[in-house]
Amino acid sequence: MEKKKRILSGMRPTGPLHLGNYHGALANWVKMQDTFDCFYFIADWHALTSDYENTSQITGNSMQMMMDWLSVGLSPEKSTLFVQSSIKEHAELFLLLSMITPVPWLERNPTYKDQIVQLSNKDLSTFGFLGYPVLQAADIIMYLANAVPVGIDQVPHVEITREIARRFNYLYGDVFPEPESVLTETPKILGLDRRKMSKSYDNAIYLSDSPEEIRAKTMKMITDPQRMKKTDPGNPEICNVYEFHKLYSDQQTVDRINPACRKAEIGCVECKKIMAEFLIQALAPIREKRSYYEAHQDMVMDIILTGNEKARKVAQSTMASVRSAMKIKGF
Amino acid sequence: MEKKKRILSGMRPTGPLHLGNYHGALANWVKMQDTFDCFYFIADWHALTSDYENTSQITGNSMQMMMDWLSVGLSPEKSTLFVQSSIKEHAELFLLLSMITPVPWLERNPTYKDQIVQLSNKDLSTFGFLGYPVLQAADIIMYLANAVPVGIDQVPHVEITREIARRFNYLYGDVFPEPESVLTETPKILGLDRRKMSKSYDNAIYLSDSPEEIRAKTMKMITDPQRMKKTDPGNPEICNVYEFHKLYSDQQTVDRINPACRKAEIGCVECKKIMAEFLIQALAPIREKRSYYEAHQDMVMDIILTGNEKARKVAQSTMASVRSAMKIKGF
Repeated sequence: MEKKKRILSGMRPTGPLHLGNYHGALANWVKMQDTFDCFYFIADWHALTSDYENTSQITGNSMQMMMDWLSVGLSPEKSTLFVQSSIKEHAELFLLLSMITPVPWLERNPTYKDQIVQLSNKDLSTFGFLGYPVLQAADIIMYLANAVPVGIDQVPHVEITREIARRFNYLYGDVFPEPESVLTETPKILGLDRRKMSKSYDNAIYLSDSPEEIRAKTMKMITDPQRMKKTDPGNPEICNVYEFHKLYSDQQTVDRINPACRKAEIGCVECKKIMAEFLIQALAPIREKRSYYEAHQDMVMDIILTGNEKARKVAQSTMASVRSAMKIKGF
Repeated sequence: MEKKKRILSGMRPTGPLHLGNYHGALANWVKMQDTFDCFYFIADWHALTSDYENTSQITGNSMQMMMDWLSVGLSPEKSTLFVQSSIKEHAELFLLLSMITPVPWLERNPTYKDQIVQLSNKDLSTFGFLGYPVLQAADIIMYLANAVPVGIDQVPHVEITREIARRFNYLYGDVFPEPESVLTETPKILGLDRRKMSKSYDNAIYLSDSPEEIRAKTMKMITDPQRMKKTDPGNPEICNVYEFHKLYSDQQTVDRINPACRKAEIGCVECKKIMAEFLIQALAPIREKRSYYEAHQDMVMDIILTGNEKARKVAQSTMASVRSAMKIKGF
């Protein structure tokens, strides 16, 4: 039997996860568990690159995130689930890779340029923020990952990781595979206000939202902006609620809603109500599992500790190779 | 009894130490052992900031350096002598401090600007090289050092360390003292060619040089550049050999040489021969101790391991405070 390819991916612990996180990454992570040897980690050190001034939530958010992960079907039996800051080897590899990474590679990183502009109110121009692709490279190559599932906007980061791995291998000998980007196909669901779904925009539906919250939030969703009155015909192709229908409602409902909307036979309120119930139903098993984990946080803690232990063994073995290749074996 | 103040200082393992290293730092380190609680470390990770392309010598150089340290009188009974790369906590603190250090603080570091210009043939523009004051800050504040013995050119680095410590304390609460610079008074001895004594200029007399090597090198020393012929009167004030006399020859000889040179009663060759013998005599006990350690490298290794253990305990305790203050206690 051929050995499974290894993939690695991580998420910053920004709090409870929403449907954007789920469809943008998590759903894919869950699927990949059957095909790949998966390492998924909570990137709590990365959370500091933009949020170093407010760290009080990081540990709590990490617990929340792990509960979300388990609830949607990430499994400690299938995958290695761990917390970055618990594996100190990431810091050592970050330091060593920083020594071989030219500053211009980091300065021309498009995400760096973007974020500097977009978040100009935050004091982001820190050395750690500039170097976050170096930390990311350390995270990835530490586990000798063959591939990284990413959205299209993250491809340049994986490219820097590949360059750093190549440079390390060139300078010190072959230690790291160059990980490939695996593009994730994701449905285009938006936040309640039609912007990207994001905690910071306060436009998100969370995996942990109660049925009441889901109903209330659904009512606020912006539909086809051209459809002003109930009697105007709508266009499902540009309606965010219709995107949700396609993901959550049964086929019969989807087939009925589409022409009814176009002919103004159904209003947005009714359409939303139908979708909300399907959504509530679809999230029920996740919500149920989550309640279970919330009541059994010691079990979540055990899962984290076991995952950390598995990750640490791989990291220690990689660092032994790294120190040996660099001829800094220490004393 | 008042608790001794703690100082910390380190050296890059560039190979066997020369008289410039000795008078520029080591002699002072030896003295400070009686007044301070001293932590001295071999900065092998720092060696990578400029020499990442050639790491084969680092471990060997570290052993050589420790033997030199022990030979000149650094004592594992009095001080904590350790190797940076063995204390992984330095990497973690480096990573955490990198998150709060603004890039402009590093870009305006005068040593950074200087070295970029001076060593323009090397590919120095790495992320690690830019961040080396951050690593240095981690090294220093890890041990809650109150003071750092430095030459005048290093004062700006300690200033960055103080700024980083202050910023950490401001953001997360009082953890670190702000270390003060303690300026080291050093004699102005130069290399054989009157440039700064440096391994890379190939103009150095090493602590481990044999009497024959010392005699041969002394003969090559440039004296008063104005004195072309033996019959020209010389000026000891600008003569490097005279500086050596003041450090190594007895007072009677110094008092005799000075006017004799001014009156051209003694030639440079004779003057050098006299100095060389005093220098050989002065270095004899160091050379003897060094031979002993060379024959007992297991003992040197034990001293390193014991020092590492002492340092690690302090580092672990500091990191517990750091993680607690930053509220990233991990799992």
